[in-house]
Amino acid sequence: MEVVESKEWYMAAYAEEGVPSSDHLKIRTVTVSLAVDSIPDDHVAIQSLWISVDPYLRSRMTGAGGLSVNQFPLNQAISSYGVGKIIRSKSSRFEEGDLVICPAMPVAEYCVIPSNYVPRKIDPASGIDPVEYVAMLGIPGFAAWVGIEVLGNPKIGENVFISAAAGGVGIAAGQLAKLKGCRVIGSCGSDDKVKLLKEEFGFDDAFNYKKEPDLDAALSKYFPNGIDIYFENVGGKTLEAVLNHVNAYARIPLCGMISQYNKVWTEREGVRNLLNMVGKEVRMQGFMLRSYQDRSADFIAEMEGYLKEKKITSKHKIYKGIESFLDSFASLFSSSNIGKVVVQVEA
Amino acid sequence: MEVVESKEWYMAAYAEEGVPSSDHLKIRTVTVSLAVDSIPDDHVAIQSLWISVDPYLRSRMTGAGGLSVNQFPLNQAISSYGVGKIIRSKSSRFEEGDLVICPAMPVAEYCVIPSNYVPRKIDPASGIDPVEYVAMLGIPGFAAWVGIEVLGNPKIGENVFISAAAGGVGIAAGQLAKLKGCRVIGSCGSDDKVKLLKEEFGFDDAFNYKKEPDLDAALSKYFPNGIDIYFENVGGKTLEAVLNHVNAYARIPLCGMISQYNKVWTEREGVRNLLNMVGKEVRMQGFMLRSYQDRSADFIAEMEGYLKEKKITSKHKIYKGIESFLDSFASLFSSSNIGKVVVQVEA
Repeated sequence: MEVVESKEWYMAAYAEEGVPSSDHLKIRTVTVSLAVDSIPDDHVAIQSLWISVDPYLRSRMTGAGGLSVNQFPLNQAISSYGVGKIIRSKSSRFEEGDLVICPAMPVAEYCVIPSNYVPRKIDPASGIDPVEYVAMLGIPGFAAWVGIEVLGNPKIGENVFISAAAGGVGIAAGQLAKLKGCRVIGSCGSDDKVKLLKEEFGFDDAFNYKKEPDLDAALSKYFPNGIDIYFENVGGKTLEAVLNHVNAYARIPLCGMISQYNKVWTEREGVRNLLNMVGKEVRMQGFMLRSYQDRSADFIAEMEGYLKEKKITSKHKIYKGIESFLDSFASLFSSSNIGKVVVQVEA
Repeated sequence: MEVVESKEWYMAAYAEEGVPSSDHLKIRTVTVSLAVDSIPDDHVAIQSLWISVDPYLRSRMTGAGGLSVNQFPLNQAISSYGVGKIIRSKSSRFEEGDLVICPAMPVAEYCVIPSNYVPRKIDPASGIDPVEYVAMLGIPGFAAWVGIEVLGNPKIGENVFISAAAGGVGIAAGQLAKLKGCRVIGSCGSDDKVKLLKEEFGFDDAFNYKKEPDLDAALSKYFPNGIDIYFENVGGKTLEAVLNHVNAYARIPLCGMISQYNKVWTEREGVRNLLNMVGKEVRMQGFMLRSYQDRSADFIAEMEGYLKEKKITSKHKIYKGIESFLDSFASLFSSSNIGKVVVQVEA
């Protein structure tokens, strides 16, 4: 196996509006040489196992969506957070067979990358399923932790609202807030999800926003004592409704705005009641995980503990085979998934 | 002088929309007894000297504007921040003739109030004009200080944008940011104000927003390196334009939103590009001065120092006589003033 064929997804054209399609993301087969001589020093060859599928990738497909991450270069393989297996190593840090975390892994079956793209190995003795390293221990878990614990600063008994609550980030955020002693309510897009949030993930209550045409009235019902933390995943009208129910000193970590990504900004829903933030002294704060890398070890220690003690329940929506990446990505915008969306590369 | 006639402004009817008028605020003459026997223990009789006229009072005239301060009770005298003279004292803390600060002074010529409504005396030896205690040392100065120094956390060389820059808060905020080594640009509503901001208050530049129909283009011109701190006084379209020019980790202290107070919230201008806050990791934070009382002594020490050393230039728009209160208040919403609006009660 000195040469392998490797399917990879590349950026064929940017998508300014709408959900990216096969016009924008295309798959091709390339040849990757695994001959030791062909691998540069301090590089490793990796076989992809799990690829994280996250909404923020959308913004890298235009570069103009308000997220300041870089555009994916045209005609090159796109990348995402992933778990892979080292199959060749020219780095003293890794041996063949090591399972590793790779925050910018090409969305490809195989790749050869600098070893400094690979921050750490997975300890096989931990007893934690490797898929968790792209779920509760990956981007969604870390995003939930930064939003709830670092920016949310939750206090026992506070009222926490989580939108897109049945998604990968939402189920992590809700459970972390529960572990801090908060009352947690989630919104989601189906009755099945409502049931799951309450029965499987321990939310105090949940509702299907599609059945609540008057979101303001819904929040009055679910938050008679107001909202102290709103974990923002959706944007637009939901944020506006929340701002009519915030308590003094409420915190609104902005993780993402799934309802807004696929529109040019002038077509997005305007939020008309930001003045409420003055009187209630609300703090709203956008965040990107790159700015919290110094807290990563704290996060991992805490989350690994919860997983080992089974205090956190994880759920994955697994798409099989690298070919499924585009479908898996498009599904993020259709409210069709429960749990963290991942691609399992070896189907 | 055991009995005086005292003119006072009272809330006759709430104003849900628009600028409050003589339908809502009315003046009447009441009789105040100054006989020592008629003044309760731990109370003082005060003659008003200076009354602070501030936009936030608008929200107390509906109670429904998003600011969580209480409505003024109907048929009772309204109150504001003021400086007065003690004319009778049944408190061991005060003597007749003391000049005092009164954060909730009735908008009246005379009043009798509990001495604990009066936090402190003005030191006549300080050399500071008493009007400054409702200006640079009063609400606008403290609001500017909290916004710029506490929430803005300015660093040398950062780019600071101040809206409503020629108002009482704006001229204080701009000068404080300059003293911290920032580059400061202000927007305001007339060419005269532009000139004043640059020549008298040391702004690096300023522009008349009425002559900049494309605010986005104006900000591109004045902020080629982006905005690090936006001191928000106006809301709506200005905030939206700013969010297209924010740098990573920008701070937006929300002091008020003068363009929005007189509209019901559903009629306000929506902000459509809050998603920019995610990628740029922007922090937007509303504030009310009541939450920063523990920093008041720090503020006073710093600002008194600046005033004594003439490092800060103050400017007042003085309305004479208690009768002028309504006109002075309405003027806040017409962009007609330069500097801090005050009523000098003894005309």
